[in-house]
Amino acid sequence: MSFDPKPADKFTFGLWTVGWQARDPFGDATRDALDPVRSVKELAARGAHGVTFHDDDLIPFGSDEGERRKHIDRFKKALDETGMKVPMATTNLFTHPVFKDGAFTSNDKDIRRYALRKTMKNIELAAELGAEIYVAWGGREGAESDGAKDGYVALDRFREAFNTLGQFVKDNGFNIKFALEPKPNEPRGDIFLPTIGHALAFINELDYPEMVGVNPEVGHEQMAGLNFVHGIAQALWHKKLFHIDLNGQHGPKYDQDLVFGHGDLKSAFFLVDLLERYQYSGPKHFDYKPARTEDDKGVWASASSNMRTYLILKERAAAFRKDPRVIAAMKESNIPGLMEPTLASGETWKDLAKDSFDVDAAGKRGYGYEVIDQLALEHLMGVEL
Amino acid sequence: MSFDPKPADKFTFGLWTVGWQARDPFGDATRDALDPVRSVKELAARGAHGVTFHDDDLIPFGSDEGERRKHIDRFKKALDETGMKVPMATTNLFTHPVFKDGAFTSNDKDIRRYALRKTMKNIELAAELGAEIYVAWGGREGAESDGAKDGYVALDRFREAFNTLGQFVKDNGFNIKFALEPKPNEPRGDIFLPTIGHALAFINELDYPEMVGVNPEVGHEQMAGLNFVHGIAQALWHKKLFHIDLNGQHGPKYDQDLVFGHGDLKSAFFLVDLLERYQYSGPKHFDYKPARTEDDKGVWASASSNMRTYLILKERAAAFRKDPRVIAAMKESNIPGLMEPTLASGETWKDLAKDSFDVDAAGKRGYGYEVIDQLALEHLMGVEL
Amino acid sequence: MSFDPKPADKFTFGLWTVGWQARDPFGDATRDALDPVRSVKELAARGAHGVTFHDDDLIPFGSDEGERRKHIDRFKKALDETGMKVPMATTNLFTHPVFKDGAFTSNDKDIRRYALRKTMKNIELAAELGAEIYVAWGGREGAESDGAKDGYVALDRFREAFNTLGQFVKDNGFNIKFALEPKPNEPRGDIFLPTIGHALAFINELDYPEMVGVNPEVGHEQMAGLNFVHGIAQALWHKKLFHIDLNGQHGPKYDQDLVFGHGDLKSAFFLVDLLERYQYSGPKHFDYKPARTEDDKGVWASASSNMRTYLILKERAAAFRKDPRVIAAMKESNIPGLMEPTLASGETWKDLAKDSFDVDAAGKRGYGYEVIDQLALEHLMGVEL
Amino acid sequence: MSFDPKPADKFTFGLWTVGWQARDPFGDATRDALDPVRSVKELAARGAHGVTFHDDDLIPFGSDEGERRKHIDRFKKALDETGMKVPMATTNLFTHPVFKDGAFTSNDKDIRRYALRKTMKNIELAAELGAEIYVAWGGREGAESDGAKDGYVALDRFREAFNTLGQFVKDNGFNIKFALEPKPNEPRGDIFLPTIGHALAFINELDYPEMVGVNPEVGHEQMAGLNFVHGIAQALWHKKLFHIDLNGQHGPKYDQDLVFGHGDLKSAFFLVDLLERYQYSGPKHFDYKPARTEDDKGVWASASSNMRTYLILKERAAAFRKDPRVIAAMKESNIPGLMEPTLASGETWKDLAKDSFDVDAAGKRGYGYEVIDQLALEHLMGVEL
Repeated sequence: MSFDPKPADKFTFGLWTVGWQARDPFGDATRDALDPVRSVKELAARGAHGVTFHDDDLIPFGSDEGERRKHIDRFKKALDETGMKVPMATTNLFTHPVFKDGAFTSNDKDIRRYALRKTMKNIELAAELGAEIYVAWGGREGAESDGAKDGYVALDRFREAFNTLGQFVKDNGFNIKFALEPKPNEPRGDIFLPTIGHALAFINELDYPEMVGVNPEVGHEQMAGLNFVHGIAQALWHKKLFHIDLNGQHGPKYDQDLVFGHGDLKSAFFLVDLLERYQYSGPKHFDYKPARTEDDKGVWASASSNMRTYLILKERAAAFRKDPRVIAAMKESNIPGLMEPTLASGETWKDLAKDSFDVDAAGKRGYGYEVIDQLALEHLMGVEL
Repeated sequence: MSFDPKPADKFTFGLWTVGWQARDPFGDATRDALDPVRSVKELAARGAHGVTFHDDDLIPFGSDEGERRKHIDRFKKALDETGMKVPMATTNLFTHPVFKDGAFTSNDKDIRRYALRKTMKNIELAAELGAEIYVAWGGREGAESDGAKDGYVALDRFREAFNTLGQFVKDNGFNIKFALEPKPNEPRGDIFLPTIGHALAFINELDYPEMVGVNPEVGHEQMAGLNFVHGIAQALWHKKLFHIDLNGQHGPKYDQDLVFGHGDLKSAFFLVDLLERYQYSGPKHFDYKPARTEDDKGVWASASSNMRTYLILKERAAAFRKDPRVIAAMKESNIPGLMEPTLASGETWKDLAKDSFDVDAAGKRGYGYEVIDQLALEHLMGVEL
Repeated sequence: MSFDPKPADKFTFGLWTVGWQARDPFGDATRDALDPVRSVKELAARGAHGVTFHDDDLIPFGSDEGERRKHIDRFKKALDETGMKVPMATTNLFTHPVFKDGAFTSNDKDIRRYALRKTMKNIELAAELGAEIYVAWGGREGAESDGAKDGYVALDRFREAFNTLGQFVKDNGFNIKFALEPKPNEPRGDIFLPTIGHALAFINELDYPEMVGVNPEVGHEQMAGLNFVHGIAQALWHKKLFHIDLNGQHGPKYDQDLVFGHGDLKSAFFLVDLLERYQYSGPKHFDYKPARTEDDKGVWASASSNMRTYLILKERAAAFRKDPRVIAAMKESNIPGLMEPTLASGETWKDLAKDSFDVDAAGKRGYGYEVIDQLALEHLMGVEL
Repeated sequence: MSFDPKPADKFTFGLWTVGWQARDPFGDATRDALDPVRSVKELAARGAHGVTFHDDDLIPFGSDEGERRKHIDRFKKALDETGMKVPMATTNLFTHPVFKDGAFTSNDKDIRRYALRKTMKNIELAAELGAEIYVAWGGREGAESDGAKDGYVALDRFREAFNTLGQFVKDNGFNIKFALEPKPNEPRGDIFLPTIGHALAFINELDYPEMVGVNPEVGHEQMAGLNFVHGIAQALWHKKLFHIDLNGQHGPKYDQDLVFGHGDLKSAFFLVDLLERYQYSGPKHFDYKPARTEDDKGVWASASSNMRTYLILKERAAAFRKDPRVIAAMKESNIPGLMEPTLASGETWKDLAKDSFDVDAAGKRGYGYEVIDQLALEHLMGVEL
């Protein structure tokens, strides 16, 4: 089987990923700035489906309208030439000092209004470029001290922002949905809406909840030690997996943004298994950073590794699911039994109240999960079983 | 000021807290079993408002109806004699081997039905004892391997369970609400609904969402490195803080269940500040474990420490909020500005689109949070400012 | 290639691993006690090299001399019949309440003396059974509160214990070395000598440092978010890797003791790579716990998975190292350059002070690590490159 | 009691702390560069004892000899005018791209030599300025992939570097000792010598171990979830606490560098208690970062908070230790019993082998640690007991 990515695989990359200049908290940039046009072409040549961007990735902050249009036009030309899509866009509400204490939850009403204006402007561009998903990562919406922000009031302002943006999209007739991207911390000590769960809960309080879903990122959940596969299962269950950020992370520490699969490989295997089984059809978006040790060559090699690893895992997960030994083991574990409703059609609590049951006998049953886990591992490792 | 707890402070304890015999994964029990009647009396003598229980804490698993009633009657008598209340009860769905792979999300329909039956039986007792909150901690609802449980299907079964229980409560006319208690892991590798956020999101998919809230526990969120004060602020914002479990924890590691305040003291200070400012009126429930090194005397000393620490922090937080220097510092930080809506009454996105704004000037502003954090710390430490 | 374990592979298991009855902090045992004789036979039948034990695993605590000897004799008979070895033994200084506040660092001199006596008695048995390594895991040597133990004084007592035990072994002419097993926490809030590094440092202060090394465990280091491969490299560098405990863990949380490879698979790959390249020749000891969901059948299946995974990873790591593309990539990354001393023979700091160097040019070099990491991942996954 | 810092308190600050321009992984600088001369004066005015520096903090990277000398002379003048000391200096081996894959453990011999040269040059300046401690933080000595660096070989090069530097210091007759600063990760995925323990162990393999100690940092150990008080106790026990970095951190996440005490306050209390009881006489060095939200005013306010909090905690810890109730509680817990040697003078293992002991009776004893912990907490909170 070939592991060469094709546009139909719907792999996408942020301009800021391959374009990261590798400036970190302790070090200067190690790579030159990348022209977005070149990124489009290099990624297209490697089989990607599209690119995504923050406003400031494409149009340097502070550009006037004329410059802005030039940047956009060059970019659109590259898209046309390569057939690359822009399925998603987002706003940079974190780099400039004005956002140092938040954008939609800044104490300063004028900053909040500016953040909305900056976002609306880029939503217009997103619509122009055909994007149907608009990601919102509130990286600066948080605090280092619990005395500095009232988390309750901040949620009022956060809600107001998404209600306003929803109205803006509706009033303009854009075919755009929002995807909230949770993260527990960094660059703030604690960020509001820190996990998939918190974001899903928040959506229910909005004026247009149907317009808002989530954009979970592998590393962000793993920074809280949470099981990303479980998180995605819950997002799917709520019908809210609008977009996904794939990368790698080694548990609770700074945000590593490793190549997909280069962190917890076993979790990546089960993630691909889940996405494919539940027919997630959105873009598979890599939000990673080529290591700071890499030069230009390493940047493009790492971009390809993301896609290749996904395809390998996809093949391995499919083989795992159709292996008769796995099917038999799952049956022995009674995994299909979980799909059966607890109450038969028409039954109520009164019916089950009458059951009798040998608790101790049922407690003796073995579930055989160790066997399934090993079968999964051996499929992941491509062992001839 | 006195820090002596009184029933009006609404401090409550689980029978399983002071009653913990200190059996841990590597060691045998170090304390004898405690008679629930004695626990009621000892806690009453120390100023507690009430006690809570799992069914099996009060009535040994496997007791017949006659024995069950005797245990209940003795307990009620102790309550009557002391004036202690039972504001909350819960079910043990984790100790017996039958629950080793889950209760409401067990693969085995009969186990799921048994778990519901066990819960309904104890809800009846809870209602009899006057409890208005029924906590559900799904400690065994999870997995060690992502191959063992389909998290999506598990949520279907989890929802079915709470729909059934909600119907049961409604049909019986009980004045009871449910409070889901999230936990990220332990005793399972990963537990479903791992954080406050995930539980809040889940509630929205239930038949009777108004009957279900959350029962967050300090240590459970801190095991995921999450900010508990933020989590509680979000629960309050959703109007879902039905109950709370207070204790202590030192970050991501095994579930420590320390005395309240004995983990992250600064977070405990801001938690009490939040609960009091938002007038949380439910029980302040201590779900802690007296250290395994302690004998009976240490058990009761530690019980008192929980209450005393809450009262000290309450006094300190109130002083912090009314200190003119704090009020001035908060004004300088423009913290009150966050309460002002971003859009004035009647404004829409069209209005803010017209604003002009000096971004660079606004970026230069300092927020003065370091000063506020230090003022908080010094109030916490009782420093004469 | 066959992945069937053989005694020459030197795979060993603790009696307490397959024999774990699956009692956890929230649940009762789910499996019956295992007869050590049966464990010896089952493990032998699966290709293991040997077994290891705590005194109380083999001889129930409190047995008199006659019973003790019977247990030993039965065990020796099983060893003889199967050819199984006992390369290591250790003492249970954590289950009985007497050790609730420590053994070698208990406040009570009589408890410290008792702990030494219990250890010496089992060292005699270890010597009788041919063990050459005696592991010391100080699971109760620690504290929940920094007010409870003075860590400085505790190290004085810890040192005294190992000096006494070293003298005991020397005086008796036993061919036994000690291996300290570090762990950061659980069952104590914080355990003394929490990591490989702390244990290695401690050894240098002993009377007989040459008799003492370390027994690192995969999960214990990963509970602190530390890189186990780096830790083992340092232990090897100090010539102190006397023994190793292989298992799996998902980062900072309770001690999971998963099957080897079932946690961080990529780290397991590089661990086997390191052990094999540096020709670690001691036992590969699995210190894992079959999941609580498993019955007897699952116990033995999981035992085999440990060994099988090691052998698969060994094959994969060897293929990685001899792949010409990997060799070429490592050369391009200048990895062999790290082996070259910084100062040539005879050079001093005065020589390098004279060098000139184009810093900016050297800063532009790319290291190509992303390529190597992907090659490793694909070897691990058995991809036809 | 006054909490105003004085030079005799020996509080010191890195130029890079107050001088941090607040550039983070997601944001641009929010503050202007600070002139070191101003920092010296501002800190002196606030009661500090001295300042410390990386070469590049004082002398911009790439300055020629003439410029270098001008920077040094201005700085010395400010020191003279204020009476401020420079007790420590260190080298920046992490900002420039040349160090992106390490300095002393770079694959490239020329880079390693350059790193040594850069270090030696600044040691000469350190000696000129009277510094007696030279800190070495190897922030880039590590890897993101276990395939990229052989940790064993890296330690060979690391040792070679410190042997060379030790020889350099001896040959020049400088009165300087080295202090290794451990950190588990960030900016590298995993850093070599990740904890206090690993660094202490490493020192024993050097040519001049007496010249090398450690410089532990509060946040660095807490990023691994380790107990900092235990770590410092072990460093003191090895007589290797040559210097200390005080700051705050909220557990395993990115390196926060909060103001001292603004993270885990209870741990800070017991840390000051330990340092004062063991009469640590070196500088109390604050290695923190004023939050990115702060302007110049906030910078200096936060600098003062570090010192003030230390002094408050010092007063509180002293009161805790001399409180008769604490002394009585410690006696009841038999804490003084840990100071008594396990073997009396002249005793050997043969003597204790003869003891008899009632294990079960000893197991019943309670240790009363909950009481001590609460007493500590109340002293910390300044409660009138």
